[in-house]
Amino acid sequence: MASNGKYGSHPYAPSAPYLPESYGQQHTQYPHGYGQPQQQHNSSSSSPQYSHGYGQPQHQPYGSSFSHSSSSYGQSGFPAGTDPAVIRSFEMVDRDRSGYIDEHELQQALSSGYQRFSLRTIRLLIFLFKSPTDSLKVGPKEFAALWTCLGQWRSIFERYDKDRSGKIDSMELRDALYGLGLAMPPSALQLLISKYDDGSGRRVELNFDSFVECGMIVRGLTDRFKEKDRRYTGSATFDYDEFMSMVIPFLVSYN
Amino acid sequence: MASNGKYGSHPYAPSAPYLPESYGQQHTQYPHGYGQPQQQHNSSSSSPQYSHGYGQPQHQPYGSSFSHSSSSYGQSGFPAGTDPAVIRSFEMVDRDRSGYIDEHELQQALSSGYQRFSLRTIRLLIFLFKSPTDSLKVGPKEFAALWTCLGQWRSIFERYDKDRSGKIDSMELRDALYGLGLAMPPSALQLLISKYDDGSGRRVELNFDSFVECGMIVRGLTDRFKEKDRRYTGSATFDYDEFMSMVIPFLVSYN
Repeated sequence: MASNGKYGSHPYAPSAPYLPESYGQQHTQYPHGYGQPQQQHNSSSSSPQYSHGYGQPQHQPYGSSFSHSSSSYGQSGFPAGTDPAVIRSFEMVDRDRSGYIDEHELQQALSSGYQRFSLRTIRLLIFLFKSPTDSLKVGPKEFAALWTCLGQWRSIFERYDKDRSGKIDSMELRDALYGLGLAMPPSALQLLISKYDDGSGRRVELNFDSFVECGMIVRGLTDRFKEKDRRYTGSATFDYDEFMSMVIPFLVSYN
Repeated sequence: MASNGKYGSHPYAPSAPYLPESYGQQHTQYPHGYGQPQQQHNSSSSSPQYSHGYGQPQHQPYGSSFSHSSSSYGQSGFPAGTDPAVIRSFEMVDRDRSGYIDEHELQQALSSGYQRFSLRTIRLLIFLFKSPTDSLKVGPKEFAALWTCLGQWRSIFERYDKDRSGKIDSMELRDALYGLGLAMPPSALQLLISKYDDGSGRRVELNFDSFVECGMIVRGLTDRFKEKDRRYTGSATFDYDEFMSMVIPFLVSYN
């Protein structure tokens, strides 16, 4: 589904794209995610959303824009109002009751509500959602945020998977990312999609697992970029060390 | 092998590190690659090398600093003086005599002189060495440059693999990359190495295949950074589109 043909002059100026204010916050409103993502397809309306959406992540350390900001937690460590099914999914895999789950446990926990994601996607999710102080594990708070986020992303995915094939093509990916507030430059989008090309000559299509992986990479890199572009100029300056340290985590794990 | 303990204040200031002038040029001198890489371990001597080594790649489009610059080619398309064994390796796999080889053919061709590299490493090598106008294939010129480069990298690898185990650990990797003129910030190096951690708790060690993959990623990203830092200030400014287009190619291929 390609809702319009305006991407030749797509509205990601003046900088990295709008991130919905609701992102990662409306965990109690799952499965309703974003405001009105479709409105973002109208380029003329994107400017006010920029400044609005942009205002939030910039004051947070990297990664935290993926986390919800509820201040109310129950004894379980979950935010108040967390769907009991989410809590059950977590507790079912946290067998040692440590309050943290590792990559294999997360893979299993998400299977109950979503699907079995690849370990590659799981590792990316952990990297993006974990607390900066925890090493490669997620706690209840992060798990609830992650669950909510995936619900939002699945809604977007399903909206663009018009024929319910469980896959979206490159144009639909472009629109779906746009619906998530991520306006990729066409050349970068083509590069990204080419990573999923199996060389068979068939049209590249992404299932939900690949969509999440792909989107999380775009989202993570964009968030990092925006942290360095707080005045929405569309450009950011990095020193060599921070550039390398910033990019390397998004390289796929090799094992 | 950790030759010194000075990396806490390692000399990658003022910007991305020195790239040897000989890089990719001395194909006739294979297997002797770099000038005196060991000298670079003396941080006080690195400054003049910076300005010297930095002068070259900046005038070239991305990727071409990986290619040799010989202006003399034979009928075969190979640079004059190319080792006949290199030409044979290429022609052996270029069965249709198209003058270009694809990823599987390259994998096979390199097996005759080096080893069987993973397709992941092969794809990265093609991306970095191919002519910008060719899509995912390499011709004689690029193949010769690639072959030479691998010879240089193998020499460095073997120099730091003191016990001839065929593997280097993280400290040796740091020194080996340094020997290639790539001074990674310690935090970025740790992140990179963690990608090769199999979770077993054993010390991470890299074989030559992983070393090439790892080094090519660092090299490619560093070259890109340096193209945007032509005044050696140690920082570079990117707009969002170019940032995304620059980073995404280094994400590992998914298929």
